[in-house]
Amino acid sequence: MSEPPDFDANFRARLRELIVWRRDVRRFKREPLPDGALNRLLQTACLAPSVGLSQPWRFIVVDSLTRRDAIRQCFEACNAEALSDQATERASLYARLKLEGLDEAPCHLAVFADRSTSQGHGLGRLTMPQMIEYSAVLAVHTLWLVARAEGIGVGWLSILEPSRVAAILDAPPGWVFIGYFCIGYPAEACDTPALEQAGWETRRPLSEALLYR
Amino acid sequence: MSEPPDFDANFRARLRELIVWRRDVRRFKREPLPDGALNRLLQTACLAPSVGLSQPWRFIVVDSLTRRDAIRQCFEACNAEALSDQATERASLYARLKLEGLDEAPCHLAVFADRSTSQGHGLGRLTMPQMIEYSAVLAVHTLWLVARAEGIGVGWLSILEPSRVAAILDAPPGWVFIGYFCIGYPAEACDTPALEQAGWETRRPLSEALLYR
Repeated sequence: MSEPPDFDANFRARLRELIVWRRDVRRFKREPLPDGALNRLLQTACLAPSVGLSQPWRFIVVDSLTRRDAIRQCFEACNAEALSDQATERASLYARLKLEGLDEAPCHLAVFADRSTSQGHGLGRLTMPQMIEYSAVLAVHTLWLVARAEGIGVGWLSILEPSRVAAILDAPPGWVFIGYFCIGYPAEACDTPALEQAGWETRRPLSEALLYR
Repeated sequence: MSEPPDFDANFRARLRELIVWRRDVRRFKREPLPDGALNRLLQTACLAPSVGLSQPWRFIVVDSLTRRDAIRQCFEACNAEALSDQATERASLYARLKLEGLDEAPCHLAVFADRSTSQGHGLGRLTMPQMIEYSAVLAVHTLWLVARAEGIGVGWLSILEPSRVAAILDAPPGWVFIGYFCIGYPAEACDTPALEQAGWETRRPLSEALLYR
């Protein structure tokens, strides 16, 4: 164990900038990532916290064009259903949103959580088995931030049917689908969420989400 | 919109150190946080990604000693059950683990996710309603990292009965319990997880969690 690092005011300011400028990216350049970049991101993701040190995140790198095409079809079916579920007055705005970067993003990554893992010996999971999924989400966010620090964008796609994704990717039994991620260099940088730019939603102040007891 | 920041190699190295040295803290100093520190952490947490820009994270700052005591009793009951659920050969090790910092940590924070929110207009949630909880987890991790960058430790307690916690804290209906967090200055810094130091579990290589398709 080395000396603990001291994170100074300059680093903290830059970290805040990273958080402010992280985006859920939907518009990518087609430029591939450098050799080894995805592996490095995944290695760092494995340093995320996990319940009982269970490290239940599971990754599938999707290279097969056939499987990518099946994922696209799954998205299109789910998105059509989501569009028809929108209120009439919002449907045309919904239809104009770009909600995925499946065609342009050079890397496709599916993330799962393994509820069947014995790693961690069940610690912290008895009353909250969903801690397994939450741990995988922590790994996703770790990857997301270190990617952005390298100028690499990540887009989280949830408009998919989890059981269908697992079948398309031939995921092992017991793996719970967390999300499908498009990864690549973003076509633009912005400090405002795309959905806010598009007029879909605005951010609310902390005071609306905070209670004291 | 200002110019996008350029995160250089020095920042990326420090970010990796932050991730390496972030811990799930169980041993706290009793020293209170500076005025405004918790609010600042929560403000930054609200910059996390969320499905459809729904920002479904909900925070309860727990100051009441009566409620804190009820949370401790809930933990003790759940932990006794978890101990009895452990295999015989691991039970004595489990019993020696320090799994919470409820007595020492100056700040207690409960995090929930609001499935009933209309913010985001349902975008991204139709096939995966659990994206609401995942979004709250992303806020937790954001808070965790910025806290560590200020030298503040966070410990995630999941050995609790969610419905009991909601009742103790009089949480609004529809709020799903995500976790209970002890926050304060850590008694020690370490680059190795406490559960690894205690011999409970070891970390595994990425290769065991990675498939190609």
